[in-house]
Amino acid sequence: MPKENISASVIKRLPRYYRFLAELKKQNVLHISSRQLAENMGLTASQIRHDLNCFGGFGQQGYGYVVSDLYCEIGKIIGVNQCNPTILIGAGNLGKAIASHINFDNKGFKLIGIFDSDTNLKGKKIGEFEIMHTDVLKDFCKSEKPVAAVLCIPKAAAADMADTLIEYGIQAFWNFSHYDLKINHSDVIVENVHLGDSIMTLSYGLNNIRK
Amino acid sequence: MPKENISASVIKRLPRYYRFLAELKKQNVLHISSRQLAENMGLTASQIRHDLNCFGGFGQQGYGYVVSDLYCEIGKIIGVNQCNPTILIGAGNLGKAIASHINFDNKGFKLIGIFDSDTNLKGKKIGEFEIMHTDVLKDFCKSEKPVAAVLCIPKAAAADMADTLIEYGIQAFWNFSHYDLKINHSDVIVENVHLGDSIMTLSYGLNNIRK
Repeated sequence: MPKENISASVIKRLPRYYRFLAELKKQNVLHISSRQLAENMGLTASQIRHDLNCFGGFGQQGYGYVVSDLYCEIGKIIGVNQCNPTILIGAGNLGKAIASHINFDNKGFKLIGIFDSDTNLKGKKIGEFEIMHTDVLKDFCKSEKPVAAVLCIPKAAAADMADTLIEYGIQAFWNFSHYDLKINHSDVIVENVHLGDSIMTLSYGLNNIRK
Repeated sequence: MPKENISASVIKRLPRYYRFLAELKKQNVLHISSRQLAENMGLTASQIRHDLNCFGGFGQQGYGYVVSDLYCEIGKIIGVNQCNPTILIGAGNLGKAIASHINFDNKGFKLIGIFDSDTNLKGKKIGEFEIMHTDVLKDFCKSEKPVAAVLCIPKAAAADMADTLIEYGIQAFWNFSHYDLKINHSDVIVENVHLGDSIMTLSYGLNNIRK
């Protein structure tokens, strides 16, 4: 069981552990020490022990971690097999890329519908999905009960859409818009992907850190 | 001038300040106190003062910040007008979305070429760009001297590609692959966008924080 008040940075490292362990499993590695895992991941052994202790430990002194067990436990903690029903709002370039590029199924979610307010997009296909108009969102949410939404819409539209979706039962947002959801909705789960901020952080690095 | 050793979390907040100030400018707000800015951004006033002090202050006691000055100064610190020549590697769904969705120009970069190793994509267009084959990457880098690269390729291809690009003069990576560049190349500037990790962090939140 995860402890209370685990820091955001520890939580953010969990998927990375999960990825590394998946690779070790593929390479048929059975055990790994925190020192070896640290070397692979560019962390320190004590950081790894501290991180994993937040979730109950898992290692054995002098023996290290059983790769497949740790992989499985971290997967459970992340909830990779949960299949939380999820909708995607905004079928522009970015929405299309997310819908086609991301495998939701083994990451805790199941994509069940794609919506856009542009009537011209209605009925067009993204993979197996026919884009629906946002007019039918209410009925869809009532019958299909999605709990998570991917927001691929501009900031200007995101505030109203977030209010609406929360009213319709959405509890978690994967937010690609520049709208800061948490300010007005502190009770929902939000994971922001601010691509514009990310590239500007790179710019800062190039202009300041390199010199 | 930025101080030495500014923490990553302060740096990551800079683009967010920049975004908020852009909006305040649009709304013709001339001055703002750290308290007001904090309320708008969901931070504390002391956090804002601490952050901005890392870069030299800018505020006046009892008067706050001049919005347009602060906007301009933060823009300079980020380097938004630098136009660093940039190439994008990997013209799949994600690469296409990044190339069409992101305005590089006002974020410190100038996209100058898109490459893919798939010969079938050669000559196809993304916006104004014709996709080039990675065969011509060396000559292109020699003549056009890009300093940054966007990696939209799978992890398996990313390690070799990163080595090659660094050899060709690339100093900064916007990395969408799951390859951990920093482990083998501690000297380059890397900004990772691990979409798979991000959605798993959301899954963790939905499965642990909500309950």
